[in-house]
Amino acid sequence: MKIMQLYAAMKSDLQSIEDQMVQTVTSDLPILSETSLHLLKAGGKRIRPVFVLLSGKFGDYSIDTLKKVAVPLELIHMASLVHDDVIDDADTRRGQLTVKSKWDNRIAMYTGDYIYAKALIVVSDLAKPRIHQILSGAMVQMCIGEMEQIRDFFNVEQSVRNYLRRIRRKTALLIAISCQLGAMATDAPARTSHALYRFGYNVGMAYQIIDDLLDLRGTEKAIGKPPGSDLRQGNITLPVLFALEDDSLKPQLLKEIYSIRDGEGPANSAPAVKLVRSSRGIKPAEDLADRYIEKALKALESLPDIPAKRNLADIARFVAKRSY
Amino acid sequence: MKIMQLYAAMKSDLQSIEDQMVQTVTSDLPILSETSLHLLKAGGKRIRPVFVLLSGKFGDYSIDTLKKVAVPLELIHMASLVHDDVIDDADTRRGQLTVKSKWDNRIAMYTGDYIYAKALIVVSDLAKPRIHQILSGAMVQMCIGEMEQIRDFFNVEQSVRNYLRRIRRKTALLIAISCQLGAMATDAPARTSHALYRFGYNVGMAYQIIDDLLDLRGTEKAIGKPPGSDLRQGNITLPVLFALEDDSLKPQLLKEIYSIRDGEGPANSAPAVKLVRSSRGIKPAEDLADRYIEKALKALESLPDIPAKRNLADIARFVAKRSY
Repeated sequence: MKIMQLYAAMKSDLQSIEDQMVQTVTSDLPILSETSLHLLKAGGKRIRPVFVLLSGKFGDYSIDTLKKVAVPLELIHMASLVHDDVIDDADTRRGQLTVKSKWDNRIAMYTGDYIYAKALIVVSDLAKPRIHQILSGAMVQMCIGEMEQIRDFFNVEQSVRNYLRRIRRKTALLIAISCQLGAMATDAPARTSHALYRFGYNVGMAYQIIDDLLDLRGTEKAIGKPPGSDLRQGNITLPVLFALEDDSLKPQLLKEIYSIRDGEGPANSAPAVKLVRSSRGIKPAEDLADRYIEKALKALESLPDIPAKRNLADIARFVAKRSY
Repeated sequence: MKIMQLYAAMKSDLQSIEDQMVQTVTSDLPILSETSLHLLKAGGKRIRPVFVLLSGKFGDYSIDTLKKVAVPLELIHMASLVHDDVIDDADTRRGQLTVKSKWDNRIAMYTGDYIYAKALIVVSDLAKPRIHQILSGAMVQMCIGEMEQIRDFFNVEQSVRNYLRRIRRKTALLIAISCQLGAMATDAPARTSHALYRFGYNVGMAYQIIDDLLDLRGTEKAIGKPPGSDLRQGNITLPVLFALEDDSLKPQLLKEIYSIRDGEGPANSAPAVKLVRSSRGIKPAEDLADRYIEKALKALESLPDIPAKRNLADIARFVAKRSY
């Protein structure tokens, strides 16, 4: 089954999640509804809700129960994007103006806070304290990941291991628990939710590595924001770290990175991006993403042979090949 | 019993809450522990924990249970302060540098997010979903209140009702639920937690009105930040609204407020503050705070006659008279 067919098959349940998200962020204060809906309407791949739903197939599938996990997960993701855009000083996301750019930083900060809090109200409808714990634990890790990212801006000496730890917190964990909580909410066996966690974790790692590759290789049209954003803000990603291992390229690349760091006014990351693109850093990053996808597929093996298992595998393979 | 004696009598339980707060925000990332502890160590009146503990006396008092409510409430309050300081561009709070000023806005934003999330982990230890709901509901209302405040900056046409609705969300609600949740967590009867909610709500309203009065009348030494901060950022508080009702003063006061709004560089709110201080706006604001304190005392009447009841009344009276 193709990914589009899969989304089509899940259309009604995804729509119900979308409706619940809209309803959740619609407040009595017009500006907050506006900023939140602006973001919601910009769309997204909704990979977390899709993983929640598919993982729910391994338990007693109920859209009403799964909604109470999928909605908060996607909202937490969205809230983190609003706050990231403040930090990154980003003007566009998914081809749309960001909240901080359409309104301002103050409004973006409270919009993020508001969406976080609304997400938590939804999950508190589930009488499963363990799920709340996992969810707030993931929020903590995400904050730590973001702080590590700030700390590591322009740090060209950081290890690959450091990078991997950061993206685990920043991205992989929330995708991992999307799979885990879909299974837990529907009372699937513990070994199933563990396997799904591992699946999600590995897909999440690959997902972020590919995101970082796309930021270097994509076009503004394809990725919905100007490429080279990571380097512009000092975020040293995996392909850059690998490129820096090439001694013939290193001095020039360092020079370009430092010029972004030390320059005044809008930074131009194009020369650095060009260097990394042409470097030997791309291939090993792609290979590592592939290895994570293989691990994700392996995590699925022990699961019962239901259609959702093949759907998850299809998504993992799709993630590996995505160009947006 | 004097307030200091009361704090002394509760010292060991308050210390246990303090320890748990420190432990909660101590993370594996030094910078996050540092920023959070910086804030914790600056102290504060800890009025929310005190209310939780006293309200817990009306049920099956247990410090272990009450801690799981008091710690998140105080942390949520702290997180909101960190985010407010970003918005207000405040350099000092409680006589200390703010996180945004000692570090920067980005770090302050994630420190706030981190403290919010940590607060939620603590409360998720309690298997009472209703408590989670009330807590996240209050967080939502606080965000709405903050957004209303931004929306209403420099709006000299706003009604007193508008101001009251805003401070209810911004301040009174969290104090109200501190009392309510202390009772709920210890399984006090529903009518008790309702009465305590009303008590806390009214104390909270008085508390914020007095805070706004202090910002106009206090000294930097007494209030831990330069006076006139509200007007400097455009926050039109109750005494200002009342002062604007005096037609003989209004044109001059409006002129000063508009000059803050339209001026470039650091705003000087001293002339506007001086006008309000000398105006007929102070007295009715004080009277309204007194009326809220009376209502708070009235809310206590139906409660069983235990020492905590008198302690709560003492605190309410103290709040009415505080000068810091």
